[in-house]
Amino acid sequence: MSNQSTVITSAPNQPEPSPELDALYADFEANSTAPLWTQTSDLMPEHPKPSAVPHVWEWAKLKKIAQRSGELVPVGRGGERRAIGLKNPGLAPTAYATPTLWAAIQWLGPGETAPEHRHSQNAFRFVVEGEGVWTVVNGDPVAMRRGDLLLTPGWCFHGHHNDTGHPMAWIDGLDAPFVHDMDFGFFEYGSERVTDEATPATSRAERMWAHPGLTPLSHQESTVATPVAAYRWEYTDQALTDQLALEDEGYPATVEPGHAAIKYTNPTNGGDVLPTIRCEFHRLRPETRTAPRREVGSSVWQVFEGTGEVELDGEVTRLTKGDLFVVPSWTSWSLRSESQLDLFRFSDAPIVERLQFQRVYLPETGHYLPGSRG
Amino acid sequence: MSNQSTVITSAPNQPEPSPELDALYADFEANSTAPLWTQTSDLMPEHPKPSAVPHVWEWAKLKKIAQRSGELVPVGRGGERRAIGLKNPGLAPTAYATPTLWAAIQWLGPGETAPEHRHSQNAFRFVVEGEGVWTVVNGDPVAMRRGDLLLTPGWCFHGHHNDTGHPMAWIDGLDAPFVHDMDFGFFEYGSERVTDEATPATSRAERMWAHPGLTPLSHQESTVATPVAAYRWEYTDQALTDQLALEDEGYPATVEPGHAAIKYTNPTNGGDVLPTIRCEFHRLRPETRTAPRREVGSSVWQVFEGTGEVELDGEVTRLTKGDLFVVPSWTSWSLRSESQLDLFRFSDAPIVERLQFQRVYLPETGHYLPGSRG
Amino acid sequence: MSNQSTVITSAPNQPEPSPELDALYADFEANSTAPLWTQTSDLMPEHPKPSAVPHVWEWAKLKKIAQRSGELVPVGRGGERRAIGLKNPGLAPTAYATPTLWAAIQWLGPGETAPEHRHSQNAFRFVVEGEGVWTVVNGDPVAMRRGDLLLTPGWCFHGHHNDTGHPMAWIDGLDAPFVHDMDFGFFEYGSERVTDEATPATSRAERMWAHPGLTPLSHQESTVATPVAAYRWEYTDQALTDQLALEDEGYPATVEPGHAAIKYTNPTNGGDVLPTIRCEFHRLRPETRTAPRREVGSSVWQVFEGTGEVELDGEVTRLTKGDLFVVPSWTSWSLRSESQLDLFRFSDAPIVERLQFQRVYLPETGHYLPGSRG
Amino acid sequence: MSNQSTVITSAPNQPEPSPELDALYADFEANSTAPLWTQTSDLMPEHPKPSAVPHVWEWAKLKKIAQRSGELVPVGRGGERRAIGLKNPGLAPTAYATPTLWAAIQWLGPGETAPEHRHSQNAFRFVVEGEGVWTVVNGDPVAMRRGDLLLTPGWCFHGHHNDTGHPMAWIDGLDAPFVHDMDFGFFEYGSERVTDEATPATSRAERMWAHPGLTPLSHQESTVATPVAAYRWEYTDQALTDQLALEDEGYPATVEPGHAAIKYTNPTNGGDVLPTIRCEFHRLRPETRTAPRREVGSSVWQVFEGTGEVELDGEVTRLTKGDLFVVPSWTSWSLRSESQLDLFRFSDAPIVERLQFQRVYLPETGHYLPGSRG
Repeated sequence: MSNQSTVITSAPNQPEPSPELDALYADFEANSTAPLWTQTSDLMPEHPKPSAVPHVWEWAKLKKIAQRSGELVPVGRGGERRAIGLKNPGLAPTAYATPTLWAAIQWLGPGETAPEHRHSQNAFRFVVEGEGVWTVVNGDPVAMRRGDLLLTPGWCFHGHHNDTGHPMAWIDGLDAPFVHDMDFGFFEYGSERVTDEATPATSRAERMWAHPGLTPLSHQESTVATPVAAYRWEYTDQALTDQLALEDEGYPATVEPGHAAIKYTNPTNGGDVLPTIRCEFHRLRPETRTAPRREVGSSVWQVFEGTGEVELDGEVTRLTKGDLFVVPSWTSWSLRSESQLDLFRFSDAPIVERLQFQRVYLPETGHYLPGSRG
Repeated sequence: MSNQSTVITSAPNQPEPSPELDALYADFEANSTAPLWTQTSDLMPEHPKPSAVPHVWEWAKLKKIAQRSGELVPVGRGGERRAIGLKNPGLAPTAYATPTLWAAIQWLGPGETAPEHRHSQNAFRFVVEGEGVWTVVNGDPVAMRRGDLLLTPGWCFHGHHNDTGHPMAWIDGLDAPFVHDMDFGFFEYGSERVTDEATPATSRAERMWAHPGLTPLSHQESTVATPVAAYRWEYTDQALTDQLALEDEGYPATVEPGHAAIKYTNPTNGGDVLPTIRCEFHRLRPETRTAPRREVGSSVWQVFEGTGEVELDGEVTRLTKGDLFVVPSWTSWSLRSESQLDLFRFSDAPIVERLQFQRVYLPETGHYLPGSRG
Repeated sequence: MSNQSTVITSAPNQPEPSPELDALYADFEANSTAPLWTQTSDLMPEHPKPSAVPHVWEWAKLKKIAQRSGELVPVGRGGERRAIGLKNPGLAPTAYATPTLWAAIQWLGPGETAPEHRHSQNAFRFVVEGEGVWTVVNGDPVAMRRGDLLLTPGWCFHGHHNDTGHPMAWIDGLDAPFVHDMDFGFFEYGSERVTDEATPATSRAERMWAHPGLTPLSHQESTVATPVAAYRWEYTDQALTDQLALEDEGYPATVEPGHAAIKYTNPTNGGDVLPTIRCEFHRLRPETRTAPRREVGSSVWQVFEGTGEVELDGEVTRLTKGDLFVVPSWTSWSLRSESQLDLFRFSDAPIVERLQFQRVYLPETGHYLPGSRG
Repeated sequence: MSNQSTVITSAPNQPEPSPELDALYADFEANSTAPLWTQTSDLMPEHPKPSAVPHVWEWAKLKKIAQRSGELVPVGRGGERRAIGLKNPGLAPTAYATPTLWAAIQWLGPGETAPEHRHSQNAFRFVVEGEGVWTVVNGDPVAMRRGDLLLTPGWCFHGHHNDTGHPMAWIDGLDAPFVHDMDFGFFEYGSERVTDEATPATSRAERMWAHPGLTPLSHQESTVATPVAAYRWEYTDQALTDQLALEDEGYPATVEPGHAAIKYTNPTNGGDVLPTIRCEFHRLRPETRTAPRREVGSSVWQVFEGTGEVELDGEVTRLTKGDLFVVPSWTSWSLRSESQLDLFRFSDAPIVERLQFQRVYLPETGHYLPGSRG
């Protein structure tokens, strides 16, 4: 944000310069005030004009840089995490991916532990490859495996430990930029070791909550964030496979032809897994193109498997496994698959929707989707 | 309900009989009116005094009578279903199980079809034994197998067909008494044959919706009733097994010691599967007794497996596989298992709770559960 | 409800009579069961076929009979209230107005007190004429005046006392039939005198809550029932006057041309005043006719002022001040005014809507209103 | 936000400097990434550490500067509004009052018109003195008078015109900083003249909606923002007067002793008037001090009448009529009145609460209020 309260402005119909006007503008400054008429079009543009830019990060490079960090930088109390954030070039000097979202690659070497802490910020991890780390959330060890989504809702204690002889990398997503810029967050240190070093295949939270359509009668309150600690790949894969098969059979199961997608949900209320972050998984059949769309709100995508392209406001970039890209608000995006293309996505859609700013536009047809609001 | 507007009443502090009073009471009748003071205590008792009575039906007898019906009574348009309702002795001449709930055993012979129709009444089926029938709900064939809960929300077309050479029996549950007595219901005939005679192992609805915590991005509206056509036994069994294992490991997972239970839920909103009917499944470890409890609202239970006893307002009845019993409102109930005891339950709790009459009382401790309301 | 499990039935396609069938039907009875196929069309008719009938009560007659009760019947503990219920001729022997609603005229003589009690049943009073009684709700004295709606949500203690030298009559509305038949209700005696005999013009509840769009910051929870003890006539009258004036000015403010109407609402959530009862007030310009409509659910109306007619399933009755009439579920109703016609209405719409049975049909156009559900 | 991805950091336990580390840090930059371990404590502090600072603006000075603007700066298309924003010294170069809220004094001279436009940003106006301007919201002219709160929810067309021979000033509040920084906003020009130049005492929206507890039966949907265009001073004043009188009579009506307060609400759902902004009005008895409190989220206050002091993180400033002050997130605030002290407040509490970051702390007792969340 670079509004400036100065006489020089691009806004039309400004008053004629004069010594009296100069004196007035000086007094604005002296009195901690600023005129709206010099900045209306910057502050309230006709449509979102993000400072954040579309950007693609190659997984191969990210992983290499993470590996070097693993060699040079210890993990422990103070730095807390060996996480390397995706820094949107338009948002320098911050290391934000978008105005609301933080995205990072985290690296944990053989036998290492990232100490426990908790914070208001909501977080998740998604695993594009590897396994062998357990994230311990409020004392419950949760195995991390390829394709899994692991949740750490705000104010849950959490640490990670690598139980194997090889390093592991994954991505972290948080609402840290939003919470920082809104001044909403708290942070607290926890145990330096994880509080439970067991390495079960299934967490206790999953055993309580990850049964389809079944909830424990002893826990019937709606919760702010999902109680499901891990959404396992096998279920995601099956759901997408089923959607495409149903489409083949002639039933309306996909978002658009050849494009299957699921939303990860909180079983206590059917809503998003986190109060500020939506998580989705998308699958495109080979040689499929999605209709370009502009949406209010920003998102980050990671290719899970396959190859293809993404077009962001007209610029095309080729994608391969693990690559990440950012879609700022109101940026037109479209995907094209070569092989079958699987992608994980997270976004700030719950912020957009809970505060009633939702608007989705399809440029090729000129239509707004239902529920769009000005 | 048998209130009578007559001078003779058990209510205290009634006016002295007199010719003028007799004339007044006659004029009440003549003007389609009735005094409250003669009937307050019947109309508004100190606590619920149901006409419905606790009752147990033996599965062996029910099944036999259903089998004889199968031999003597055709199934088809007009009668619609070869269903035999559980008739609460306190609610004669109706065939209601409780003031809100209908419960029946349905019998379908080899190759038979129960024709399609739809109604405002919400319905489900639960299978205590057997398989081979497909219930076709809005054109989607849903296999019925032991332990499965199959849903037919209000106004969905549905029919059943037996694809095998042997008969099959199951129980039906509906809110038909409630809908009838409230005058809320509509009914419409459909196809005489089921509209899809395919016999898939898994319904389309399950392929869309029965993935734990995952919902299709193309269908994101909250629905009045669950879109999951079938809740399969394998998941229910696993959820209960996990709860008891977690209890063994020291975590709070059960309703009370040795008593695991799940609620079947609508994944679009985390609520009940039907707007008027709650469905649950309970498992007691061997030699376990549940704390007696009184609840506003009525329920029907069926033993799925195992042996034990139920105590209803002090009267104990032995239970074995398939037996059904009714718990009227505010009746004290307690279960005792011999072996591991598995039970399916359905109740009118959504009516009670949505209209804010919930109250749960534990007679042994004299406490009301949180949320209880007068 | 008069279903009978007997071989004689009007349902089509019944089995051929035979000794075996007779034996089977006898065994149904002996085993507390009943076949569905003999009663489908009674239990689940094509559309609601209420036992309740449309009926009109003349206020002049009701008031006279209430006055005679005032002379002959004491009011006090035991009988509790000198209330005379409107007894729907189709629901004998009960004194129900509809399957869900109780409606009564209550009479309180000079200086009399109706003792305090509380019950799960939700209640209100509406005053068609007179004043001078205070209803004391949870210790808060609430003045009753012509045109006011006074609320007594479930489980609030309440009593009434007449502070004047003349008698007063009003109508009571309760969900007592519903609560009785569902077995949901509790009752408790309170003080024989009202707990606060003050006679303020405005209740404390109104001073806290009856400011338009303003709620106390100290009480920000949504409440089950409205915290507003009294909705005063002056506001109702003004709202209706404004709607008709806006219609005159060309703005969409009325339900249909010449027909203004308000819903009384709970300011904490914008919903109905009671969890089971909706209250409305309607005003028709002179010489106005409302479009006939059929609705799921039942209601009771009282003429507040003016003259006109009501047509109920084709039968026309003339209406004058104070007259009451009942509209059973799915009965076609239409109003016609001579003078300006003001009417109070209460209904079981919250039961219908919270349990998802809503359906509204306009016979003249053959359309269902949006939100109608089968 | 001033995070910097550099080797120099205040975070503890950083890796030893080395040429390899320098190379790594250079490669972070080159690859649009940044390490978390150098910035954890800035990005995720122990508690909110706002860049925004507490600040007080004197009304007398603001009004003078606005008056000079009225003389030098025309109002019209392009600049759109003669509004002078309160510029938080900690948030330079922006003209934001807080990270979420814009607050400005707007000045409209005799006969002037501020042209119509609409935007996603939610807005309101509050009048501390004067009258004579009508704000026209979606074609509905709304008179502005001392003590009134006037609403302009997102995407409603609105313009203002001064119908008198004297200028008028008021304050505007918007969620413009939030909408700008999140990239959520749209803007559209409308008519250069207001679309209805009538000057009624009461708007159509008020005639439809500003009746206590009464809503039009023709408009029963819950709306995103309040449909009440104006909350009039007479009702606010009465509500506060009543709360203090009730407190005198011994009833719990106030927030704390001597401190009355109301929340302006949306009558369709009982929630906030705008999806992002909460509006309140507070009254302190003479010589009253409020308990200091820290809250997540920021707010802006204006003194409406009376004198007193505000203490913001220990710094005391005297307040008189019209003065404005900003309370950043987690800043301790306490008010002290000399005379009776009336204050208007608006805040981003709906953002905080809908996204589940609420936390309120009372430093003097060391307690968190119920509902506080980490």
